[in-house]
Amino acid sequence: MAWMDDSIVARRGEGWSREPVTHFLSEAVQGRYHYTIGPYSNPVLRIAPGDRIVVETRDAFEGAVKTEQDLPSKVLRMPFVNPQNGPILVEGAEKGDTLAVHIESMLPRGPNPRGTCAMIPQFGALSGTSLTALLAADLPEIVRKIDVDEKGVYWSKRVTLPYRPHIGTLSCSPEIDSINTLTPDSHGGNMDLPDMGPGSISYLPVRTDGARLFIGDAHACQGDGEVCGTAIEYPSTTTIRVDLIKHWTLEWPRLETEQMVMCIGSARPLEDAARIAYKDLVLWMEAEYGFDRWDAYMMLSQCGIVRLGNFVDPKYTVGAGILKRYLSEASYS
Amino acid sequence: MAWMDDSIVARRGEGWSREPVTHFLSEAVQGRYHYTIGPYSNPVLRIAPGDRIVVETRDAFEGAVKTEQDLPSKVLRMPFVNPQNGPILVEGAEKGDTLAVHIESMLPRGPNPRGTCAMIPQFGALSGTSLTALLAADLPEIVRKIDVDEKGVYWSKRVTLPYRPHIGTLSCSPEIDSINTLTPDSHGGNMDLPDMGPGSISYLPVRTDGARLFIGDAHACQGDGEVCGTAIEYPSTTTIRVDLIKHWTLEWPRLETEQMVMCIGSARPLEDAARIAYKDLVLWMEAEYGFDRWDAYMMLSQCGIVRLGNFVDPKYTVGAGILKRYLSEASYS
Amino acid sequence: MAWMDDSIVARRGEGWSREPVTHFLSEAVQGRYHYTIGPYSNPVLRIAPGDRIVVETRDAFEGAVKTEQDLPSKVLRMPFVNPQNGPILVEGAEKGDTLAVHIESMLPRGPNPRGTCAMIPQFGALSGTSLTALLAADLPEIVRKIDVDEKGVYWSKRVTLPYRPHIGTLSCSPEIDSINTLTPDSHGGNMDLPDMGPGSISYLPVRTDGARLFIGDAHACQGDGEVCGTAIEYPSTTTIRVDLIKHWTLEWPRLETEQMVMCIGSARPLEDAARIAYKDLVLWMEAEYGFDRWDAYMMLSQCGIVRLGNFVDPKYTVGAGILKRYLSEASYS
Amino acid sequence: MAWMDDSIVARRGEGWSREPVTHFLSEAVQGRYHYTIGPYSNPVLRIAPGDRIVVETRDAFEGAVKTEQDLPSKVLRMPFVNPQNGPILVEGAEKGDTLAVHIESMLPRGPNPRGTCAMIPQFGALSGTSLTALLAADLPEIVRKIDVDEKGVYWSKRVTLPYRPHIGTLSCSPEIDSINTLTPDSHGGNMDLPDMGPGSISYLPVRTDGARLFIGDAHACQGDGEVCGTAIEYPSTTTIRVDLIKHWTLEWPRLETEQMVMCIGSARPLEDAARIAYKDLVLWMEAEYGFDRWDAYMMLSQCGIVRLGNFVDPKYTVGAGILKRYLSEASYS
Repeated sequence: MAWMDDSIVARRGEGWSREPVTHFLSEAVQGRYHYTIGPYSNPVLRIAPGDRIVVETRDAFEGAVKTEQDLPSKVLRMPFVNPQNGPILVEGAEKGDTLAVHIESMLPRGPNPRGTCAMIPQFGALSGTSLTALLAADLPEIVRKIDVDEKGVYWSKRVTLPYRPHIGTLSCSPEIDSINTLTPDSHGGNMDLPDMGPGSISYLPVRTDGARLFIGDAHACQGDGEVCGTAIEYPSTTTIRVDLIKHWTLEWPRLETEQMVMCIGSARPLEDAARIAYKDLVLWMEAEYGFDRWDAYMMLSQCGIVRLGNFVDPKYTVGAGILKRYLSEASYS
Repeated sequence: MAWMDDSIVARRGEGWSREPVTHFLSEAVQGRYHYTIGPYSNPVLRIAPGDRIVVETRDAFEGAVKTEQDLPSKVLRMPFVNPQNGPILVEGAEKGDTLAVHIESMLPRGPNPRGTCAMIPQFGALSGTSLTALLAADLPEIVRKIDVDEKGVYWSKRVTLPYRPHIGTLSCSPEIDSINTLTPDSHGGNMDLPDMGPGSISYLPVRTDGARLFIGDAHACQGDGEVCGTAIEYPSTTTIRVDLIKHWTLEWPRLETEQMVMCIGSARPLEDAARIAYKDLVLWMEAEYGFDRWDAYMMLSQCGIVRLGNFVDPKYTVGAGILKRYLSEASYS
Repeated sequence: MAWMDDSIVARRGEGWSREPVTHFLSEAVQGRYHYTIGPYSNPVLRIAPGDRIVVETRDAFEGAVKTEQDLPSKVLRMPFVNPQNGPILVEGAEKGDTLAVHIESMLPRGPNPRGTCAMIPQFGALSGTSLTALLAADLPEIVRKIDVDEKGVYWSKRVTLPYRPHIGTLSCSPEIDSINTLTPDSHGGNMDLPDMGPGSISYLPVRTDGARLFIGDAHACQGDGEVCGTAIEYPSTTTIRVDLIKHWTLEWPRLETEQMVMCIGSARPLEDAARIAYKDLVLWMEAEYGFDRWDAYMMLSQCGIVRLGNFVDPKYTVGAGILKRYLSEASYS
Repeated sequence: MAWMDDSIVARRGEGWSREPVTHFLSEAVQGRYHYTIGPYSNPVLRIAPGDRIVVETRDAFEGAVKTEQDLPSKVLRMPFVNPQNGPILVEGAEKGDTLAVHIESMLPRGPNPRGTCAMIPQFGALSGTSLTALLAADLPEIVRKIDVDEKGVYWSKRVTLPYRPHIGTLSCSPEIDSINTLTPDSHGGNMDLPDMGPGSISYLPVRTDGARLFIGDAHACQGDGEVCGTAIEYPSTTTIRVDLIKHWTLEWPRLETEQMVMCIGSARPLEDAARIAYKDLVLWMEAEYGFDRWDAYMMLSQCGIVRLGNFVDPKYTVGAGILKRYLSEASYS
């Protein structure tokens, strides 16, 4: 894709011009998956900036929901869900740097029905939950097993949804915390943002030596907000290229696509996630694209793009973006 | 537009098949504009279902911000802002019915620079406000006057934004309350939803005899969330066709476009606005499109569309939608 | 009560030193009660500053819940609940003034069981509601009729709660809005703050000529937050003395008791209600008690008192207070 | 104190009837303090149920703010704040048990001015923060050094506040997460609840073998909500007695005092913290005190006590309590 040549990672990545070495992070190489993202686990791989990794991700239920009779409340054992590959060490990465993760492709893996969607007790946006604690009875617990291939998500006899794969959980390690894989925060984590699919480049703050990249939670598609609490969870073969941008210090993750750059906030209530994202975007436009701060703020009020990742996880995730063409127009002024 | 023939209003409206009478609600006919939406003001027009109205809306500052030196804190007198045309009585409308408002066109009105965008003290998503009360100093007060025509919004020398007009405030009267024109709620009001533009059909709950339609607050364009607190506010000539759907009782407003139907919630915190919208959409799919409730809920988790109207008004507005083609596919099952 | 002589109203009220005229606002004088607080209803009484009024309040269900079989969903017709006495015109009151309402006494009225507590569908803090919209089933609908006298609230055979009466809803009219009696806001309204009982003085912003005082919603007792949605709702004979403080312009209601002064905020989410209350208290300490702003802020972090009124109404209510002795100590510095 | 003999820990603790061994967890024994609460750090002490520990806590700034010129933004290095003593292993403690921590006494330690209060940039309830991200300028950064002794907190020449010591941060380890010491959650952590002082008994969920108790963050006094972001932070000698209740599985911390039992929730927005606390209290009254669920819910609506810990930390903390005498009255019914 031609636009990639002018992407941030292409211009600033340490290893983008190198011929990438390709690593294979299979299930076997991974061994034990991780349920918490932090500095206390043993690396499974060490790569150089610019390398490619082919990752075998497991689905968010780690394969335990095999049929529509396998109810999550029976077959899952909390908090051991949303298994992550990694941590992957990136040579030369240090606190204050940024890791760039370009998703090259996401392919379904394993036999059909590969996809799983579930209504889980005390989970989902229209149910009482462990955090929005109510005395109301739980919604019914329901599992749907769904055929998925590279052409579609076969929801029902009548409805086929497009295959729009993306990575639900992605991040480097926090500095001293270790955070469960259900919770997004300033490190990234379980953002469940549909824009984080093939072609996108995620920029993640590095907070420990080696960055310690974690990745998992592939979705074959997801609606805005992931309202029932789960997407089409499926095992994938996800190919990423990982690079390092030295001395670019982010407070929160960012995302680049062909058309757009986006800042990502995760918080509760939901407006605070949107505030984080928009504030970071204003400051970015000021710092790197030649905007006056208030001009950026007022212009985003006219052309800002908001994407709701999830409003079901322990923190909610919002992306605030702007079309790149407005940035380039401005940068010449 | 051919899709209109299969729209909800075309199928269910009392007067859609009639040849519409066209009314002209000019500034002169309107006389005094309104700053509160309720049952206590005198109607300015009486129409039959299916009639067309050409409305001269004033901008949200009622024209008082003529230059970039006219600071809102000086030239506005609260709460007399966001002036509305109306109320318009619709014959035969009664509590429990729904009013359909099809926006046919929106044209700029008056001399350029017609558009106004402002950062107003104690207003906007990234400032302390009267409701998110802080001790932090206000952001600077800034006014931008912007040329607007039917081809574009001329933000700056380098950036031209597309002309994407929409109505910011639209509603029937509440039953007994009278609500200021800054606040959206279940009646509609100041939703600031960019999807409410030409071609769209809004469905609004009727709660008093005659419906008492109010309309105003035209925007030449607006980003998702209206982050600085204002859009490109401008005076417009807005042409609407208004119809009545008897015995269709809505709790919250809904919207139809060529591709999509959408439910609209307004509340704080922002997740509650999204909950209202998604719940209403689930129940609508169950009631009128043949979906099982839980199938609708789980499917929206895969293909639901969320649109953020504003997160700056006294209540925030979110739309939750679904592509019509998924509804029609399902309705045959 | 001796402390009253040094209260704000005693020092600043227009009519406090006058011999009060006593008015009787009986059910018969009131006639039709009000379900919305605004400038559009006809006054039932006109008083001079400093006058006393004996008010016959009806319970929040307007007497319709007579037995434990009278389910609210059957016997109530929304939005016609929480009936208010008034509006009462106060001579000389103008926008920018403050009304002081000293509650002298609250006596139970009518035959026992006078008290009513109910779990109402889609209402209460631990249930899905019309604003926190969920797909969860409603909690059971339950009515409790409770004997109440001046000595106690006879909850059950084993548990007698103290009689701690207070007024749930109190306010002057907004300037142009008319707001339903379930919703508190900057005008006051349905604050459901247990501190607003006999002995207290409420200070309410005046926004229209004559102030237009509304009062109702007596509670025989209430826990912090009114968690199930209702208190011990009962009909009362409430005696108030009403005075006028000219040119004291409040943004939000305030409260004075023997020990404490308090500022009251109403908003969602709950932290915004607390922010409003604390900010107003800081600014008050700065404006009238000789505190440096930041000293007040930091000192309240050590001795501020927070009272949760309700977190069940359309807006939640929080009071932030400080013991008067800390103010007087400071004022001599 | 006689009431202790009838406390929950006295009736159910494994070691309460034993003669306690007293351990001394001095600064020297502690060595390196901890900034994250989790299962990955090395224990500093191993005790038997019922043992007493004398703990030398450091203040939340770890002594780095020695004068009013030591601005936090200069002398602190995030995230290395709020240092904790521990982890302390308790013999026999296993996931599913509860740890009881009775605070016997809290004495000031070190030379005066021992107390520190600070306004820290991007922190506090009336400022933009890292989570409620705004473009507003920071409040001024101010440090107050305060004399503290067992009789008072000497705020200023005119105002002396009572010495009301309590522990701000207390918890067992989460199962797999390691959580920074600024954040409260279901494990406990930085709750900043003024009720957690001498005489109180905290009940904490055990989630790992040995419980791994952490304690720190002593406050000489604190107002409700800790509005500016800090209390009177000071180094203390805190004496606790720690016991183990087997097979009592809590979801969230609880607290017992002479008069009251309380459940504690931590979440954002603030109403969700209150929901967690009240729900847990309802279920506790049902499970262990013989209440019908709905009777408990409705009765708490009349007599529930809400205590606001903080609304400044990454999650806010609320306690919901009931007087024990209402429980004992009910338990005989």
